[in-house]
Amino acid sequence: MSKILTIGEILVEIIATERGNGFRAPVSLIGPFPSGAPAIFIDQVGKLGQDCAIISRVGDDDFGHLNVDRLRADNVDVSGIDIVPQGTTGSAFVRYREDGSRAFVFNIRHSACGTIELTGNAARLAEECTHLHVMGTSLYAPSVVDSILAAIRIIKSKGGTVSFDPNLRPEILNAPGMREALKAVIAQTDLFLPSGAELYLFTEATDEKDAVKELLATGIKAVVVKQGSVGATYFDQTRTLTSPGFAVEEVDPTGAGDCFGAAFVTFWLNGAEPEQALLYANACGARAVTKAGPMEGASTRAELDAFLVSQKV
Amino acid sequence: MSKILTIGEILVEIIATERGNGFRAPVSLIGPFPSGAPAIFIDQVGKLGQDCAIISRVGDDDFGHLNVDRLRADNVDVSGIDIVPQGTTGSAFVRYREDGSRAFVFNIRHSACGTIELTGNAARLAEECTHLHVMGTSLYAPSVVDSILAAIRIIKSKGGTVSFDPNLRPEILNAPGMREALKAVIAQTDLFLPSGAELYLFTEATDEKDAVKELLATGIKAVVVKQGSVGATYFDQTRTLTSPGFAVEEVDPTGAGDCFGAAFVTFWLNGAEPEQALLYANACGARAVTKAGPMEGASTRAELDAFLVSQKV
Repeated sequence: MSKILTIGEILVEIIATERGNGFRAPVSLIGPFPSGAPAIFIDQVGKLGQDCAIISRVGDDDFGHLNVDRLRADNVDVSGIDIVPQGTTGSAFVRYREDGSRAFVFNIRHSACGTIELTGNAARLAEECTHLHVMGTSLYAPSVVDSILAAIRIIKSKGGTVSFDPNLRPEILNAPGMREALKAVIAQTDLFLPSGAELYLFTEATDEKDAVKELLATGIKAVVVKQGSVGATYFDQTRTLTSPGFAVEEVDPTGAGDCFGAAFVTFWLNGAEPEQALLYANACGARAVTKAGPMEGASTRAELDAFLVSQKV
Repeated sequence: MSKILTIGEILVEIIATERGNGFRAPVSLIGPFPSGAPAIFIDQVGKLGQDCAIISRVGDDDFGHLNVDRLRADNVDVSGIDIVPQGTTGSAFVRYREDGSRAFVFNIRHSACGTIELTGNAARLAEECTHLHVMGTSLYAPSVVDSILAAIRIIKSKGGTVSFDPNLRPEILNAPGMREALKAVIAQTDLFLPSGAELYLFTEATDEKDAVKELLATGIKAVVVKQGSVGATYFDQTRTLTSPGFAVEEVDPTGAGDCFGAAFVTFWLNGAEPEQALLYANACGARAVTKAGPMEGASTRAELDAFLVSQKV
């Protein structure tokens, strides 16, 4: 029986309700929403009924408890979340600009989740789980990078697998040590889930076909290129499969890629054909964008099945 | 020519627009507002045209720049604010409960202002200023306490003075080292500005008269007991003066005590009679509560004069 682990940031997200540029004057906001890319991912995995856990840290404040309560309610094993008495829970303020891009103010590195260590319950979970999902956003602090690399070693030594979503934002790519950490993770990756141009992060190639070939030659078993509402393409040594996205009314795209990845990894680990994994992953991403809040659009299997029926699939 | 210095937290404040208990579900919010008790105090001092400065740290993010821009615009010397490249600016989420009390989620100790040091421009300002105002809320981290105690020694050695507003909230009183730091500051205080029951923090007495007598016997020159909308009472070795508050429509009481203190200290340092200092301080506190946002209700001298005319004083 597989159990999926992730390690990284748990945050609250505060969303500006009006579009505009940044946070240099008071604006109308809504929050706190439970958030953090690995937290959104693992919440969606738990909602699908898959055994799963997260290793992270939060403060002993309303923001921390909001997150732990949500993850527990959605069937995520929260025993690896340390509640740090004098710590603060991470946060992200998000404002959409007129052009659809996003302005952020982050508090991650100096929050409780900046000091994750693979000790205690966290170490036990690394022994217990059979698959690790790594988010590029989680490579923000040396202790977290060390914990992720140690968990990869433990899980791989037992024959387990690793999936990797670079999930990069420009603010993050230039953080100290980030590029080295990304390279260490890709070298151990079985299932690679880049969005668009992230496909070229670790290759010399300039077109999709060559980039995929290069990646698969390094030992990666499968590559899934996410293209948002357009859909996604799956590649392995023998197959290339494209699955179109679904047309839905977009309310808030944040978290959609994390939900897509959660569904794909869950189906893939459970032996589904790539066609089926892609179909459910696209459905999961589509449902995610229809709700405001990063984790609010996560789906159960029943909700995905109903959605697919409604889309006449 | 006097110059007033303060040392401590600069924050953004995010305010829930609906009353209720805490932040365990998404609510409607407004912010960021520039905030932090010493920042509100010194902003009001600057608005009154008094030479003044603050020593603090913020992150290199919109929240930090929002604060620095506001303080600079209101004539505060901001050369002692370090902008920490990888730091985050402190924050406070505030929600009013149905009974009027407040629920907070703070990020102070692990934010940029948790690492204030009396070096560089900060050390220069401590040499240059003639008065230090200490907020009890600013005794939240060892480095800040050390900086405040060092600044007290420098300013006192040149014949300068110290004012002290305990400004305590239950969340803060039990922070590690807080009680010891409070005692070290009160021992060097010239002008003490407690709110209500804070008068009894450092005394054995159980009634106001005895508590004031005890405090004045330790070398404190004057005590001003703040009672919010009811007004305030001034005590020194020879006088007791009570000044009633002003009836105004309260929108947001946060910051009113800080503005009151700023006006009192400014008038007191400039040789005003205590009657006049109390009158302007009460006017300043009254105007502060009529605006949403901790620093938004700060007043210029002209605005206070116009307010006093409108109140037929």
